[in-house]
Amino acid sequence: MTTAILVAAGRGTRMGLDVDKLFLEVAGAPVVAHAWRCLDRSPEIDHVVLVIRPDLESSFRKLAEAHVHPSKPWSLTAGGPERQHSVSNGLDAVPTETTLVAIQDGARPCTSPLTLRLCLDAARRIGASVAAQRAVDTIKESDDASTITRHLDRSRLWTVQTPQCFRVDVIRRALAAVRVKGLLITDDTAACDLIGQRVELVECQDPNPKVTSRADLPLIDLLLRSIQC
Amino acid sequence: MTTAILVAAGRGTRMGLDVDKLFLEVAGAPVVAHAWRCLDRSPEIDHVVLVIRPDLESSFRKLAEAHVHPSKPWSLTAGGPERQHSVSNGLDAVPTETTLVAIQDGARPCTSPLTLRLCLDAARRIGASVAAQRAVDTIKESDDASTITRHLDRSRLWTVQTPQCFRVDVIRRALAAVRVKGLLITDDTAACDLIGQRVELVECQDPNPKVTSRADLPLIDLLLRSIQC
Repeated sequence: MTTAILVAAGRGTRMGLDVDKLFLEVAGAPVVAHAWRCLDRSPEIDHVVLVIRPDLESSFRKLAEAHVHPSKPWSLTAGGPERQHSVSNGLDAVPTETTLVAIQDGARPCTSPLTLRLCLDAARRIGASVAAQRAVDTIKESDDASTITRHLDRSRLWTVQTPQCFRVDVIRRALAAVRVKGLLITDDTAACDLIGQRVELVECQDPNPKVTSRADLPLIDLLLRSIQC
Repeated sequence: MTTAILVAAGRGTRMGLDVDKLFLEVAGAPVVAHAWRCLDRSPEIDHVVLVIRPDLESSFRKLAEAHVHPSKPWSLTAGGPERQHSVSNGLDAVPTETTLVAIQDGARPCTSPLTLRLCLDAARRIGASVAAQRAVDTIKESDDASTITRHLDRSRLWTVQTPQCFRVDVIRRALAAVRVKGLLITDDTAACDLIGQRVELVECQDPNPKVTSRADLPLIDLLLRSIQC
């Protein structure tokens, strides 16, 4: 059984808006409704766990009725203070028969069914995978946020997105290692490093942007109108 | 005297199009016309050198007449096989009184006057600078283009763009060092490493995208219609 964990507990503070970025309207529905719909429509996914802020429970129930019309079973669980706590809570809430999980950002509404399938295939094969694209930008490292410390070789760089997919035992062991060491991680594949688990980069061809600022919305609107989840 | 070098000699092969990406129409004019206009309108810039493919000389002359209406002196020079050769050719063609150069991608049409000014200020001060933004994506390094080798710390990462600005003696020495060592570099700040020249990261607040694929055009159209070069 494959369960999707939709991480939708953030506050979108980077946008500096009153309205949660997950609930910004784009292509006729809130951002997070598109993200949920992508998972719900995928033949690979059997159940969707949404990790949300507890005060938004009724908003998500309304979202299901008004925009998503889910065809798969789903459940809500409360997020934690940081992403890794939200993912842990999501893992605690998956149906017991779950062997494979797809962790998806609630603010990433354009993920294609193909990307989701390829990521799940890779996780089934080697244990862990992540949707990725070759870096387009030239990237520099800086020690002081003021001058360049290290010029990185772009041909070796990948930007990683979600879905991040795992065999459920792998991600549970990895996050347990994070807890034992008291680390703060920004993405779940980094946790795999601690247990020596390889992570496959699944090159996705389709644009898979995340809503991080208002400037992202016009492109996302355009993409959503041209794809079908 | 400050001279801009507009690097417009690429073929845009990544787009897989017959039409050169620099000549794609966006917001009523070809991409490269917007880039040229930004430089021409800047009070910081005294002269513009355009580095072009020799077979497109008449196209650029027509562009000036039809779209740019330059108010500053400008000249054309031929590009080389790689970006670094094009930049070298551009440097050979700057007026002799030039003390400061701004190197700009022909495919980057939205650079704001503020970004240009801040980059030139920094180059005047420490010798070299580059327009940069904090990395938004999570970046991984891979040895084999298949699995993750190293998880990079995003808080230390910057994406760099253009303008890249230099005191003219600095960039000349840096590119001479590249030639002596027979290296191929992808951006001009990397050359500074060879001569121990520090490069300032100039955080630009305004979106400053490059046309790399057709998917970039709708956002760029929107940005161009909302800013004034």
